[in-house]
Amino acid sequence: MKEDYLISSETGKKLFRNIKGLPIIDYHCHLSPKEIYQDRPFNNIGEMWLGGDHYKWRLMRAFGVDEVYITGNASWRDKFQKFAETIAFAAGNPLYHWTQMELSLYFGIEQPLSGERAEEIWNKANLMISEQKLSPRKLITMSNVEYIATTDDINDSLEYHQKIRDDASFSTTVVPSFRIDNLLLIRREGYREYIGRLSEVSGITIDSLKSLQNALCNRLDFFAENGCKFTDVGIEYFPDRIGDEDEAWSAFSKALAGQTVTDEEFHGFLGYIYVFLASEYRRRNMVMQWHLSVKRSANGAMFRKIGADCGGDCIGDVIKGDHIIRILDAIDSDGGLPVTILYTLNPTSAPALSAIAGSFRNVICGAAWWFCDHKRGIEEQLNVVAQTGHIGTFLGMLTDSRSFLSYARHDYFRRIICNLIGEWVDCGEFADYKYAEKLAQNICYKNIRKLIGG
Amino acid sequence: MKEDYLISSETGKKLFRNIKGLPIIDYHCHLSPKEIYQDRPFNNIGEMWLGGDHYKWRLMRAFGVDEVYITGNASWRDKFQKFAETIAFAAGNPLYHWTQMELSLYFGIEQPLSGERAEEIWNKANLMISEQKLSPRKLITMSNVEYIATTDDINDSLEYHQKIRDDASFSTTVVPSFRIDNLLLIRREGYREYIGRLSEVSGITIDSLKSLQNALCNRLDFFAENGCKFTDVGIEYFPDRIGDEDEAWSAFSKALAGQTVTDEEFHGFLGYIYVFLASEYRRRNMVMQWHLSVKRSANGAMFRKIGADCGGDCIGDVIKGDHIIRILDAIDSDGGLPVTILYTLNPTSAPALSAIAGSFRNVICGAAWWFCDHKRGIEEQLNVVAQTGHIGTFLGMLTDSRSFLSYARHDYFRRIICNLIGEWVDCGEFADYKYAEKLAQNICYKNIRKLIGG
Amino acid sequence: MKEDYLISSETGKKLFRNIKGLPIIDYHCHLSPKEIYQDRPFNNIGEMWLGGDHYKWRLMRAFGVDEVYITGNASWRDKFQKFAETIAFAAGNPLYHWTQMELSLYFGIEQPLSGERAEEIWNKANLMISEQKLSPRKLITMSNVEYIATTDDINDSLEYHQKIRDDASFSTTVVPSFRIDNLLLIRREGYREYIGRLSEVSGITIDSLKSLQNALCNRLDFFAENGCKFTDVGIEYFPDRIGDEDEAWSAFSKALAGQTVTDEEFHGFLGYIYVFLASEYRRRNMVMQWHLSVKRSANGAMFRKIGADCGGDCIGDVIKGDHIIRILDAIDSDGGLPVTILYTLNPTSAPALSAIAGSFRNVICGAAWWFCDHKRGIEEQLNVVAQTGHIGTFLGMLTDSRSFLSYARHDYFRRIICNLIGEWVDCGEFADYKYAEKLAQNICYKNIRKLIGG
Repeated sequence: MKEDYLISSETGKKLFRNIKGLPIIDYHCHLSPKEIYQDRPFNNIGEMWLGGDHYKWRLMRAFGVDEVYITGNASWRDKFQKFAETIAFAAGNPLYHWTQMELSLYFGIEQPLSGERAEEIWNKANLMISEQKLSPRKLITMSNVEYIATTDDINDSLEYHQKIRDDASFSTTVVPSFRIDNLLLIRREGYREYIGRLSEVSGITIDSLKSLQNALCNRLDFFAENGCKFTDVGIEYFPDRIGDEDEAWSAFSKALAGQTVTDEEFHGFLGYIYVFLASEYRRRNMVMQWHLSVKRSANGAMFRKIGADCGGDCIGDVIKGDHIIRILDAIDSDGGLPVTILYTLNPTSAPALSAIAGSFRNVICGAAWWFCDHKRGIEEQLNVVAQTGHIGTFLGMLTDSRSFLSYARHDYFRRIICNLIGEWVDCGEFADYKYAEKLAQNICYKNIRKLIGG
Repeated sequence: MKEDYLISSETGKKLFRNIKGLPIIDYHCHLSPKEIYQDRPFNNIGEMWLGGDHYKWRLMRAFGVDEVYITGNASWRDKFQKFAETIAFAAGNPLYHWTQMELSLYFGIEQPLSGERAEEIWNKANLMISEQKLSPRKLITMSNVEYIATTDDINDSLEYHQKIRDDASFSTTVVPSFRIDNLLLIRREGYREYIGRLSEVSGITIDSLKSLQNALCNRLDFFAENGCKFTDVGIEYFPDRIGDEDEAWSAFSKALAGQTVTDEEFHGFLGYIYVFLASEYRRRNMVMQWHLSVKRSANGAMFRKIGADCGGDCIGDVIKGDHIIRILDAIDSDGGLPVTILYTLNPTSAPALSAIAGSFRNVICGAAWWFCDHKRGIEEQLNVVAQTGHIGTFLGMLTDSRSFLSYARHDYFRRIICNLIGEWVDCGEFADYKYAEKLAQNICYKNIRKLIGG
Repeated sequence: MKEDYLISSETGKKLFRNIKGLPIIDYHCHLSPKEIYQDRPFNNIGEMWLGGDHYKWRLMRAFGVDEVYITGNASWRDKFQKFAETIAFAAGNPLYHWTQMELSLYFGIEQPLSGERAEEIWNKANLMISEQKLSPRKLITMSNVEYIATTDDINDSLEYHQKIRDDASFSTTVVPSFRIDNLLLIRREGYREYIGRLSEVSGITIDSLKSLQNALCNRLDFFAENGCKFTDVGIEYFPDRIGDEDEAWSAFSKALAGQTVTDEEFHGFLGYIYVFLASEYRRRNMVMQWHLSVKRSANGAMFRKIGADCGGDCIGDVIKGDHIIRILDAIDSDGGLPVTILYTLNPTSAPALSAIAGSFRNVICGAAWWFCDHKRGIEEQLNVVAQTGHIGTFLGMLTDSRSFLSYARHDYFRRIICNLIGEWVDCGEFADYKYAEKLAQNICYKNIRKLIGG
């Protein structure tokens, strides 16, 4: 990988040289704290890359690879071969870029991957893995990561976060995020048991709306004690109304009783909880993240065979701005909004979302998410925020990943933002190099550093 | 500002040199005819820039500036300081471009604004203001503006338009536009009083649908006598149906009686009035402008504290093409459409809207509006029109502004269109320089000149 | 036309030189098999260009040309004059590019068309037509077309396809596609007669859902015998539900009886037929094409005066992803999906559609369609597929045209894709020229060749 990979602007190259050494703060990801704690060295690049990465699985399916080489019983070597054949033609796909970058950054391999070169690269990479004893912590340290916020169910014991914190040999901060999806999906099978566990872990019997709220506050306090700064929701529904206390309790108690909850009741419950939790977040100085317009497990047969998070998710329909405004406005009128970050999986809604964010204090748009997280998508999202909001407060990159190799995406993002700002300077649209460099530093590191304290 | 600011194409530079001297026709803006008539010199650049410009207010809020420096009691100097600090990092925002351009064009200041330079630029600019006695008319004349269409409530006395017309010392034409928002918002508080005033100014007692229509025709005639060529609507609703006379009267009379008007009734009334007024516009050779997909006062707390038009508006949801087609088709079948200009605040709907426009005679798409009015947004809108319509009939730029400094936006637009056409010529996509120059002239001046006559 | 027209990338120029000679497979168009069979030489370029091309009609209307020169009784020479005047200013419109290309490729004319040059170009082109005896087959052969799939009503006799096949003097394969629009539009006048003809041509009395299905299978078999590989639907509705057998029969029999069919019933019927036919397509190894988000005959007055397919169609509203997923998932669960190609006329929905396609085996996105079929639209569609799917399986270009000159659009597409891939290679985003060339070959020819066999 050339030093200036993805950067064509001369000023952009200079900017990148001056900011690439900044530490990484990965404030939203799906890394396993258990894996970080256990820190087992990896076995081979096939397992590292293809063990759980449904981005790669989708790409292989789209290229026509048989499922046995994706989630089936084929060997890691054979799976790696099929992936190599797939990626060789995947021009324009972020996985092509990430593959190049990860091979270069972590394995020192500069050839492009293809079916022909798979054997050679497999051997080189695995040699590096065994010689360097590549493991989760090793990769985190190599990547200069100073802060990781994982994504955790509100019932989680946070056992591994605590163990990591107590291990003085590892200096990266690893803290949980408060993810409420399972709390909200009251119409899903097993919901009563889920709430049972919430009662257990909070020590509060949940038999009223008030006691549910107390249990949630208890968990928020517990997460806060464990360093949690970020909360999150990423369900495929967004409330189109706000129920009152009676409606919220009625929907919730029906769900516990296994009775049918209508769409209207469900949305009333969601709206009530969104407003309630937001004020609790604000009180605790926690950031509220909304991941919008996602469709989960679109492929029913695949879900039944392989399960969730296996490549059957997709971009969801645009959520009405009127609904988003209604919830934001209710929270704002109810004591003010916590710092709120909006992400959308449907790039179509990015301009409207940015304009909505700009109508409220403390609301900003986040990084290009998932299907939008590629060179053009990142550029587009940065441009949208720059045009309709203020890019100076942008919070930079996060990996949103399950893979320890994904820290390359921070490098990817930094190249793209430096190139973009650099182009503005080159052509005279932005007049002042000094501010351009400060801006790049703020976006890539300082803004998020300030938000999490320190 | 360099002569070729924002223009990279060689042919574009040549085009711009050859068209930049054309006069400006600003056929849609929110300038105050009273201020133009009174022509009071400005006090300082803080007041000029920050007195009423909610674009700047939003940017400052997004950068975290305290409200006291925005709509609060801080001094103009302090507000200017905060704005300078905000703009220094606002890369990619049109306000950054406009700030550079306005400082250069009106004040001869070529340095970029920032917190550090605020004091120096404040002094220089204010010196220029006092030495040059910068005032509304002075700025209009400096900008080579030959025609201004303001935006006026249908009840307006047009007193200041008449006074300006009668003042032989000022040669720019300043005419009103017929803005019907307040007529349409029948569910708003004070509607009965509003219609009372309409009765008064028209001299027609409004006690039936017919008499309402007569009063509207009376006002249209009055506006026409005062030079009005343009009508406008920019409410956040678009009729999803067309009521008949009975429905329209029923909704209207309920509104006057203070009774609840349902969504269906409201939309039926809107649809009826849209179709009725369109034929009256056509009869009077007036242009019909629709400003679509806007959401007003999204931030309830801000609206209650500061009021409307203060930075709490945003991009609205996409309006169904089926609804737009229904109204256009009804008007078309009812004797034909007046010249109709469609604007959308939601850039997502631009391609569909352009294709819809292309299905009807006399319907065209207008300039990129408000949150879309920036370099990339203007380029995108021009491309959409070029691809799916015919760019040769495009009506060019309008400021849509409350500020007398905003004429810089015509220069901004001309640079962007010249660069775009120039690029097409440079790379051989467009084959004929002669037609490129005619095209640029037509878009920047001649098309709209022809439309308003002369 | 320069050799490198539209190609700025150096690698792109090389790619194009190496793939431009590949044969053309036009797997979706609206050419008339009767005209191909009869092969009458053309009379003049006016008739060739303006006889049936509603793209050009719209452009002329948008430029303000009187209808007499469009669908009226003016002479071909006069119509050609008006078109020449229109195109001279149509910068950025694909018709401008296509006009340049068609004049160059088929007539050897390298000057840009304009009002001034109309007479000269009219004479040159007509001389070429008469000297070269330009006719449908001549143009097909000049264009190196090896396969054409026309679009045919399911009741069609396929007489001319058979006659073409039996004519040994013409080597291009011309096969029908199974287009079901008329079958689905059960609420249209004349539907009973349409089904009567279906009974007749299939020899199956249609008096039950089962017999309707048998008749459809009979027609599918007949089309398959005549070489049909592609099916298609392009109505403006998409089913939001799937009716069961009773509902489907109830809706269908109401339609036959001339009774009102509600939206819900209509959609239930559509959903039922979509799922049923998909499994019949799969059984016969036929490709299922969905053309989504089109609005037909938006302009009622024009439709009543001139008819369908005359320039009154436009981009339709975005179809909910949830609805598309529901149908795809039902088909997938019912034995698997046939090869399915999704097209959308509303470019807004392209990213979501691509992500949906990527959640199912055998589903891919097709070429940029109609109002999206221009340089930027093609680039955007290729980028969307590359980013969110796998560009390596893209099926390349189709003309979707009624004109025998439209084969220039394959050249247009090849220039654009070569430039795009070339740019990726030039800047190092794509690392391997060898794979870039294979990729361009696959997209432009080999993928679709493999799909149709051979």
